[in-house]
Amino acid sequence: MFEAHFQTFEEPESGVALTARLAAFREELARRKLTGFVIPRADQQQNEYVAPSEERLAWLTGFTGSAGLAIVLGLKAAVFVDGRYTLQAAKQVDSNAWSVEPLVDPPPENWLDRHLAAGDRLGFDPWLHTSAAAERLAAACTKAGAELIAVDSNPLDSVWTERPPPPLGPVAIHGTQFSGEAETDKLKRIRLEIDKLGVDALVLSDSHAVAWTFYIRGADVSHTPLPLSYALVPKDGRPTVFIDHRKLSNSARDHLEHSADVEEPEALTPKLTELAGSGASIALDSATAADALSRLIGAAGGKAVRGNDPVSLLKAVKNLTEIEGTRTAHRRDAVALTRFLAWIDREAHTGALTEIDTVEALETFRRETGVLKDVSFPTIAGTGPNGAIVHYRVTRKTNRRISPGDLLLIDSGAQYEDGTTDVTRTIAIGEPTGEMRDRFTRVLRGHIAIARAVFPDGTTGAQIDTLARQFLWQAGIDFEHGTGHGVGSYLSVHEGPARISKLGTTPLRRGMILSNEPGYYKTDGFGIRIENLELVIGADVAGAEKPMNAFETLTLAPIDARLIDLKMLSQLELNWLNDYHARVRREVRPHVDEATKLWLDAATAAL
Amino acid sequence: MFEAHFQTFEEPESGVALTARLAAFREELARRKLTGFVIPRADQQQNEYVAPSEERLAWLTGFTGSAGLAIVLGLKAAVFVDGRYTLQAAKQVDSNAWSVEPLVDPPPENWLDRHLAAGDRLGFDPWLHTSAAAERLAAACTKAGAELIAVDSNPLDSVWTERPPPPLGPVAIHGTQFSGEAETDKLKRIRLEIDKLGVDALVLSDSHAVAWTFYIRGADVSHTPLPLSYALVPKDGRPTVFIDHRKLSNSARDHLEHSADVEEPEALTPKLTELAGSGASIALDSATAADALSRLIGAAGGKAVRGNDPVSLLKAVKNLTEIEGTRTAHRRDAVALTRFLAWIDREAHTGALTEIDTVEALETFRRETGVLKDVSFPTIAGTGPNGAIVHYRVTRKTNRRISPGDLLLIDSGAQYEDGTTDVTRTIAIGEPTGEMRDRFTRVLRGHIAIARAVFPDGTTGAQIDTLARQFLWQAGIDFEHGTGHGVGSYLSVHEGPARISKLGTTPLRRGMILSNEPGYYKTDGFGIRIENLELVIGADVAGAEKPMNAFETLTLAPIDARLIDLKMLSQLELNWLNDYHARVRREVRPHVDEATKLWLDAATAAL
Repeated sequence: MFEAHFQTFEEPESGVALTARLAAFREELARRKLTGFVIPRADQQQNEYVAPSEERLAWLTGFTGSAGLAIVLGLKAAVFVDGRYTLQAAKQVDSNAWSVEPLVDPPPENWLDRHLAAGDRLGFDPWLHTSAAAERLAAACTKAGAELIAVDSNPLDSVWTERPPPPLGPVAIHGTQFSGEAETDKLKRIRLEIDKLGVDALVLSDSHAVAWTFYIRGADVSHTPLPLSYALVPKDGRPTVFIDHRKLSNSARDHLEHSADVEEPEALTPKLTELAGSGASIALDSATAADALSRLIGAAGGKAVRGNDPVSLLKAVKNLTEIEGTRTAHRRDAVALTRFLAWIDREAHTGALTEIDTVEALETFRRETGVLKDVSFPTIAGTGPNGAIVHYRVTRKTNRRISPGDLLLIDSGAQYEDGTTDVTRTIAIGEPTGEMRDRFTRVLRGHIAIARAVFPDGTTGAQIDTLARQFLWQAGIDFEHGTGHGVGSYLSVHEGPARISKLGTTPLRRGMILSNEPGYYKTDGFGIRIENLELVIGADVAGAEKPMNAFETLTLAPIDARLIDLKMLSQLELNWLNDYHARVRREVRPHVDEATKLWLDAATAAL
Repeated sequence: MFEAHFQTFEEPESGVALTARLAAFREELARRKLTGFVIPRADQQQNEYVAPSEERLAWLTGFTGSAGLAIVLGLKAAVFVDGRYTLQAAKQVDSNAWSVEPLVDPPPENWLDRHLAAGDRLGFDPWLHTSAAAERLAAACTKAGAELIAVDSNPLDSVWTERPPPPLGPVAIHGTQFSGEAETDKLKRIRLEIDKLGVDALVLSDSHAVAWTFYIRGADVSHTPLPLSYALVPKDGRPTVFIDHRKLSNSARDHLEHSADVEEPEALTPKLTELAGSGASIALDSATAADALSRLIGAAGGKAVRGNDPVSLLKAVKNLTEIEGTRTAHRRDAVALTRFLAWIDREAHTGALTEIDTVEALETFRRETGVLKDVSFPTIAGTGPNGAIVHYRVTRKTNRRISPGDLLLIDSGAQYEDGTTDVTRTIAIGEPTGEMRDRFTRVLRGHIAIARAVFPDGTTGAQIDTLARQFLWQAGIDFEHGTGHGVGSYLSVHEGPARISKLGTTPLRRGMILSNEPGYYKTDGFGIRIENLELVIGADVAGAEKPMNAFETLTLAPIDARLIDLKMLSQLELNWLNDYHARVRREVRPHVDEATKLWLDAATAAL
């Protein structure tokens, strides 16, 4: 009945072939007179989702997490992963060949400290590291008396004979009905930023920035409509977009050529070299630009100016068309979500459903909107103890039956052309315990504190993050992730630069979309998360002495009242919940069948 | 009846002499072939309170604020002050000679940009600027094609013929009954930090650090028992304390010589030069070390390593003796405060009292404890519109009569040998307006949110600052200062490195003392602030999954219930207030006269 088109449940490969791959790779290093090599889980642009042709780390080590690094030396080899992936990496890599080491604290440079010998020649591919990362490696090598070598071609690619070709997802025009701003206006605003930076040109090394600037979307990676590409925007004159022409229809090419020269990706290096040769200073995004770009600009006589890509902030502030689009997308998504939640309540008590069943059902309901482009990330469906694994992703092997007494945590999202969604609900299967209700209510109070927050212009996400945690802290508990991330407009579901986290130093500006997702995770017990997307809007406060802001909640789906301990809520919190549920009912009811209407009426009844 | 020994109310001098001083100073610059000079409001250690001999800025310009800078060029001269002092500076300086310019945004370097000419030689005294400040000046000079000249002797001192001698406040031993830790243990802990820094020696350029490390206090500046001094702590071997021997009694000298060599201040330069000459790397506190120290270390062949003084963090975490001392000091201070608050309530309705009367009365009640060493800063007593001036300090000229309908804001503190206090109360004189009660209650709710906060290890002041503001934000208002600062143990009432502010990136650790002082200021109307000192303690939370912390309130004084709108308080907030008042009554009642007892019973009655 249900099926998933956009998500798979297979375990990644592991085993025998990998031993041969490591041996072949070491031989290739020896041929190139290298004594070691660094293999990050990264493409040229530090993307979250990478094309199969960029999965070098997984191919060599078997480790398939979304962040990590391997270092191969003559006798030692290690895979570096963060806390989320320690167990997974230990299962996936061959412990005879690899040790599993921490990625963050201490960093891999500490391991290099212990294992590099004087005279070693450690290679790295400067297209796969930022300059900051390369500088950290270089410092570790210097300390050990070794040398860091930037290779011209990646030695791993030489032995990866069956390496897939780069993706050729067709490029679509993202029309003004969705993007709402004349292209020349965006370029004008970018040029103001180039002026402020005092540089001669800006490299867009982030395909999201290229997509936003030139009104295109693509299909090169999973879950994000990314057209892998670069652009070069000079202070004056026409910009150049670097993109594989095979991805362009005639109309897409005409669209791009309206405002830019269009070149093959291979033209980026000569074009930058030429510009740098005139002594130009060229701004690079320190978060996504490959070290190779800094190197080639410097080598050609130009000046690479590393900093925050100004397009990142421009893109984060949505215009009126994008805001209207995301509201429409969220109303549409709400209908699919409500059908799904009603279905769970009908079916789960039998004990027959599994996590995969829920993923397939939810995607099916979303596909039935007729306009689903993709899920915005692989759905996290964790029941019972699986819910406590923050980055859980169900496979055929981990798939768990949903049993009475479980909490089921479902974190999912959709890509529609008018907007990107991201929502988490936690559902009681059968009768929840008092502990579950206490924890859920504390998480809910934190969620409501963010949703109801009023804050002056200039307030950062760091300043409001604690509002989401205060009620958990009172009970001696917490959650080990940020409260919220930025969300793109039919782009990445994780978008910078603003976030609600103690690290969020970007002021929250009207038009930004952020998630509000406090949680609580009891290891081996259960997981709780309540997530809505919030739009930053102006707050109309009587007597206000300065401009104030607030959040408009975009996500519309019932919050499971069976998990709420009403005694713990203040009157204002209860009012918020009742108002929210009344709004959900009003928006969703006209668009669902009779059975779902009945369920919705009960689920959103005033408390 | 009442009088103030530790605070004066005179207007600073201004007028004719100043014109002659500027002319004489310009002649001296010409003699030295300088075309300009920079005069900061600073001593060699960037102290908050400076000795009269260091009041160069006030002597030359007439401006007496606690922060500022003057730049004299051949034809132009400017005084740079922050927003607090714009009006005061305009009144105090001669507008024919000086322009008043912003100190922070934009910084003085922008003014230099416009007024320096190529070839100019701008002098500065490297003993009165940190290296970071000197580097900013140097960059501005380079940009203008001018030269920044570090002078060997200050040209202003050559023309300031009646300059007072440096202070010679006697040094007292701060015994272990107050400081509670064997000296060698402190030195051991400092040496661990020196090891971590990987340097050969540490310069203590902050007299607070010297006082803490060597168990001494002094009397060189107002309101802080500071013994102006330096120390040099080598990785191994005996430290050296540099201090004017005339300040030392035989017992004080014996005490110091127990753990250190004692030298005159003039010996610092040759001693550092000798150490640097061996190629040593020497750590300097970037916040207080004079640029002259970096320069002489570099010139002698050593390496100056600038960073945060590790003693600052050690000193901020109070030990059990210091904690017991501050509790005792606060109980003692509470008796004086309660007598004062009862007196105000008895007297103020007549309309005869002035702000100065309240300052004198409060200091008198504190002196009557018999152990008051000083006030910890000049009392801020602002009634009506004066209460809205955040850094108000009453003079004979601004002194205002306290009238029915006023709010009276009193921010004051005491220096006792066992602890430093800092407390603010806002008192309704006659019937407050609904607006005053709404604002006061919002400030109180923020104060209670901080006082009741529970937070995990590692939480910074930045993370909890918003708890104090949330209820003001809901009404579109805010306060333009941090929520709290660190407080020393019979040392500075403003102590780093932790603070409760969006800039407070230091984790709050058990044993730190911080103020909790949200406020609201209605320009030309009234000012509200409620301030208690809080001690960071471990929180015993049942079922806690990680170490949690909370605050123990140190300050004990009634909060004016006539200003509270009870309807706005939650039950938990009301419980906090009633519990706090019950504790104030319990602690203070046995120590006051019958009339004050009656007043206290009413002021702390359960609500």
